[in-house]
Amino acid sequence: MKLATLNDGSRDGALVVVSRDGTRAKKAGGTLQSALEGWQERAPALSKESGDGFALDLKQLMAPLPRAYEWIDGSAYINHIVLVRKARGAEPPATLKTDPLMYQGGGGAFLAAHEDVAHFREEDGIDYEAEVAVITDDVPMGVSPERALTHVKLLLLVNDVTLRNLVPAELEKGFGFLVSKPATAFSPFAVTPDELGAAWRDGRVHLPLVSHVNGVLSGDPQAGPEMHFHFGELIAHAAKTRRLPAGSIIGSGTVSNEDPARGVSCLAERRMREKIATGVMTTPFLRFGDRVRIEMKDAAGASIFGAIEQRVVKAKS
Amino acid sequence: MKLATLNDGSRDGALVVVSRDGTRAKKAGGTLQSALEGWQERAPALSKESGDGFALDLKQLMAPLPRAYEWIDGSAYINHIVLVRKARGAEPPATLKTDPLMYQGGGGAFLAAHEDVAHFREEDGIDYEAEVAVITDDVPMGVSPERALTHVKLLLLVNDVTLRNLVPAELEKGFGFLVSKPATAFSPFAVTPDELGAAWRDGRVHLPLVSHVNGVLSGDPQAGPEMHFHFGELIAHAAKTRRLPAGSIIGSGTVSNEDPARGVSCLAERRMREKIATGVMTTPFLRFGDRVRIEMKDAAGASIFGAIEQRVVKAKS
Repeated sequence: MKLATLNDGSRDGALVVVSRDGTRAKKAGGTLQSALEGWQERAPALSKESGDGFALDLKQLMAPLPRAYEWIDGSAYINHIVLVRKARGAEPPATLKTDPLMYQGGGGAFLAAHEDVAHFREEDGIDYEAEVAVITDDVPMGVSPERALTHVKLLLLVNDVTLRNLVPAELEKGFGFLVSKPATAFSPFAVTPDELGAAWRDGRVHLPLVSHVNGVLSGDPQAGPEMHFHFGELIAHAAKTRRLPAGSIIGSGTVSNEDPARGVSCLAERRMREKIATGVMTTPFLRFGDRVRIEMKDAAGASIFGAIEQRVVKAKS
Repeated sequence: MKLATLNDGSRDGALVVVSRDGTRAKKAGGTLQSALEGWQERAPALSKESGDGFALDLKQLMAPLPRAYEWIDGSAYINHIVLVRKARGAEPPATLKTDPLMYQGGGGAFLAAHEDVAHFREEDGIDYEAEVAVITDDVPMGVSPERALTHVKLLLLVNDVTLRNLVPAELEKGFGFLVSKPATAFSPFAVTPDELGAAWRDGRVHLPLVSHVNGVLSGDPQAGPEMHFHFGELIAHAAKTRRLPAGSIIGSGTVSNEDPARGVSCLAERRMREKIATGVMTTPFLRFGDRVRIEMKDAAGASIFGAIEQRVVKAKS
């Protein structure tokens, strides 16, 4: 089942069921948040819908959840942590492989897959980060990693936009990200795990995540094998000392492979690879007018989540 | 105008207008979140309600916003930062007085004013933090501190529960608080700024915030003069690179005065004062069975927000 949210002028939009090929949709009643709050009752009926209602214009969609009460992003690909910390002269945490690195994001205003990334200053170092995420139903405090996996109801893709040049000073203050993590964007569709078939196993998505900048391939790393902590472990960590409500979004962190041939899912990594290889970072961060595309295809070449396709633009002040 | 949220079994509860003396209430229709989303239209009608409907049982209330899309907490009292960092052997940030220190909290599951603080382990160092917070309407990205103040629609009190012994290792990882900041509790009532009269000025609340542990006065520091950054500055900082939606909650941080005679608004501060005075921390963190009370009274001695009154209990696993 593929779900999406149609922009009907309301803050939470209208839930639609999308056809398998992503070209048609049918209104399902209510919002995705309300469906998640009663998932056990709603899901069976939703899954019977073919989604064959009207021709779907992806530009009319909001993020599947246009806002969320919990957006907690992991950093589960060790290679990304090592490279990005090296880039800013910081050490990876000592507990790198035993204690998941996660940050609390702001869930108030997500960007649609086709919505502009609008910021005031190019100099802040606008970067994209291509990730996979899951949406949960109600998760109790203290859940085990294994039980946590049963709370995964939907998967989707993320562009975790980062203002790279604001990160060092902000993290230096000791309280984590705030202004360096502006509005996050999500793929057009959120899909149930069964849509991934055998690619969804061991709490990971075993498919390449493909990103392009200005039409040029940036990277296509495998999202499965190098995800050190699986989604159950990430959810369990986030729920260690509090419950998570239905509609919580948990991100994987930037998908990253050790093999340089797989490219990158963010520009900070490419810049660090350049520095290691040549001593000089040559790739600039994103500039106004640049375009980012993030997509994941199944073995048959069909887009699973629809593509995130965003332009970076100067925000109006 | 005093507003509260009645527990009607739904996730967001039912909005009620509360009488000035806090003893009676009347259903106003919808939720506080929906009222905030149309505040300009809703507020005038709500303010005409006397709240004289039924006798109000504070135990039947949820947090005014039982969940929020943005809960961003400042740390605007310099004395608190200096003392608490000293307690864990960390330096205050170099930008202490020029760049607000704020963290992104999780808004998915708030505690009611009379709800138990339930955790698995006393050894995690359960502490309370008494704070003041504001709730905003829609705040645009890049708002000025002065304009930001016009977006303050309601004020309320906070118990920003902290698992003190989990903080050092978590902040060491560099991504801020997550498991060390469990569910946050709020006062029974959220009130419009005019309810504070002249005590609401310069973006600060000029009244003492009184906290008790097990019936013994913990502190009654003035919340106004030593709040280094006012609420407009905190909101503007949080909205620097993204918009904040209606219903965003922005906290002051633990209210703290330099004068030791004013006591403390959290146990970490008292322990640090003990260490400075005698070399030894003698006050333990909260134990199962302990009770915390947080309240603010007006010049006439009337409780403005109702009291936060919570018991610390062992969570069922």
